[in-house]
Amino acid sequence: MAMNRRIVLASRPSGPVTPENFRLETVPLPPLGEGQLLVRNRWLSLDPYMRGRMNEGRSYAASQPLDETMVGGTAGEVVESRHPKFAVGDPVVGYLGWQEYGLSDGSQLMKVDTTHIPLSAYLGPVGMPGVTAWVGMNRIIEPKAGETVVVSSASGAVGSVVGQLAKLASCRAVGIAGGEEKCRYVVEELGFDACIDYKRDDVGKALKAAAPDGVDGYFENVGGEILDAVLPRMNAFGRIAVCGLIAGYNGEPIPIRNPTWFLVSRLKLQGFIVSEHMPLWPQALKELGTHVAAGRIRYRETIAHGLENAPAAFIGLLKGQNFGKQLVKL
Amino acid sequence: MAMNRRIVLASRPSGPVTPENFRLETVPLPPLGEGQLLVRNRWLSLDPYMRGRMNEGRSYAASQPLDETMVGGTAGEVVESRHPKFAVGDPVVGYLGWQEYGLSDGSQLMKVDTTHIPLSAYLGPVGMPGVTAWVGMNRIIEPKAGETVVVSSASGAVGSVVGQLAKLASCRAVGIAGGEEKCRYVVEELGFDACIDYKRDDVGKALKAAAPDGVDGYFENVGGEILDAVLPRMNAFGRIAVCGLIAGYNGEPIPIRNPTWFLVSRLKLQGFIVSEHMPLWPQALKELGTHVAAGRIRYRETIAHGLENAPAAFIGLLKGQNFGKQLVKL
Repeated sequence: MAMNRRIVLASRPSGPVTPENFRLETVPLPPLGEGQLLVRNRWLSLDPYMRGRMNEGRSYAASQPLDETMVGGTAGEVVESRHPKFAVGDPVVGYLGWQEYGLSDGSQLMKVDTTHIPLSAYLGPVGMPGVTAWVGMNRIIEPKAGETVVVSSASGAVGSVVGQLAKLASCRAVGIAGGEEKCRYVVEELGFDACIDYKRDDVGKALKAAAPDGVDGYFENVGGEILDAVLPRMNAFGRIAVCGLIAGYNGEPIPIRNPTWFLVSRLKLQGFIVSEHMPLWPQALKELGTHVAAGRIRYRETIAHGLENAPAAFIGLLKGQNFGKQLVKL
Repeated sequence: MAMNRRIVLASRPSGPVTPENFRLETVPLPPLGEGQLLVRNRWLSLDPYMRGRMNEGRSYAASQPLDETMVGGTAGEVVESRHPKFAVGDPVVGYLGWQEYGLSDGSQLMKVDTTHIPLSAYLGPVGMPGVTAWVGMNRIIEPKAGETVVVSSASGAVGSVVGQLAKLASCRAVGIAGGEEKCRYVVEELGFDACIDYKRDDVGKALKAAAPDGVDGYFENVGGEILDAVLPRMNAFGRIAVCGLIAGYNGEPIPIRNPTWFLVSRLKLQGFIVSEHMPLWPQALKELGTHVAAGRIRYRETIAHGLENAPAAFIGLLKGQNFGKQLVKL
């Protein structure tokens, strides 16, 4: 009997995630039924949203059940198929979770073209993170040429696309990232106009220099002190797309210190979840794919090797230790 | 020489407003120039936004200058005119400030029809407060039939119209107000479905009962603890119109404790200022005037008598001591 290795949620974190919250298991692969196919996962996507799923209780998505395979985006190839639309060898992306093999009935699985775009990019700029950037930019921030767009986690999978989309929209793009190396990458390789190192700089003061005309759009991945520092720099009628609030994921939520800015500057703040904007995905993926294939959107990956290293890589991601898209190569 | 009595800003408050922040003056009325007219103010409107103007520094509107007549909406009649479009006896509303007489060149002054609508209502439901309610409802909350709309300061000039507009839009209307008498008025006279007494009830718990299907639209006049209590009750894709944050006007801003709700429930929060939506005023005033004349929108006024009592009435307004629209009869 063929065997599969997978990582399940062993326990829910109380505070920061620890390796003990996960358990590696070897389980038998069930035989393929009619209409099913088997995928050998080659890439596992690690994303901050997974932290929310590890909690119990009300959230926008179902809680990750204990003792079941961790949810997650995957890219791989079909190795067995009893499904009319998938053939052995097809490169596919889907949500097969933290495991080496995944069984699918073809729903939520997409065949992709790897001629001009590497398979792993479909988990990054031409996948969920890229579409997340695209939706926040096009549906909430709606940047106009000449405006200033700021993004936190600027070197990350989502933030890096946000800033490059801002540049493509003829905006000034300002990143906020942790560390000199990430900031240099954001400016020199991704083409942002400026980047603020939140580990070194007073973000509020640095923004005065980096965004001298104020901030019209802010794409929020972090929350906490960084949001507090950006709010006073927002121009009238500024738009804030709330994609993530990673600063508060591990414990008590971090307040917004001075909500008066929403009124004084007539700001709009809107939370969104990319999976609720499915009708936009085809257009977004087409545009992103074209930009990536043409080299207009660049990206970087941090790759952990082997399923067993997924938990440590995920914990590192939550601490900002990754650089660009965090992947696990299986 | 004709004399005028006015109240000027004598000093800026540090913390709560005190009577010493104001000074009553008697000053000569300048003679009328060509194209000017003189209005005898009969009603002075007192509104929370004036508190913001009393501060120094950046805000959405110019700071109220020291030693000059306090800004404010007024209603009265023309008593002298060298302006082709205004005749003696015309009832007018405008922004002539805290004074008995006001000189105008006719700009920002509107002739009104008092046949079916009393003059003072043009400072309330058929004036700036009513349009504020209308804009927040129609441009941010956009209520759909069957949804639940919650409003704080529900018995006030703005909040009372918000709830009645919600009922006219076939929504469930839930008010939050301070005290049993205000709550009874909101339900029994204004027709809200329920009202929560924030001085007596735990707002979060009370909302579970008053808004059993959750909250789709929240019209915020207050901020602070009340906003914190409403956020967890918001439904997915809820809209929050931020009109005022009076709880934080007198000192340190009051944080939003748990911004995670914006993400988890994909909420939109938007601050707005009614004077920036001038193109909407004619339509809003027409609808509001029709509703008021037909008795579909009801209102209540708290009337202070005499210009010299305006400061005390304003201080009372900031403490929620008024009941409905706070006016000064001159």
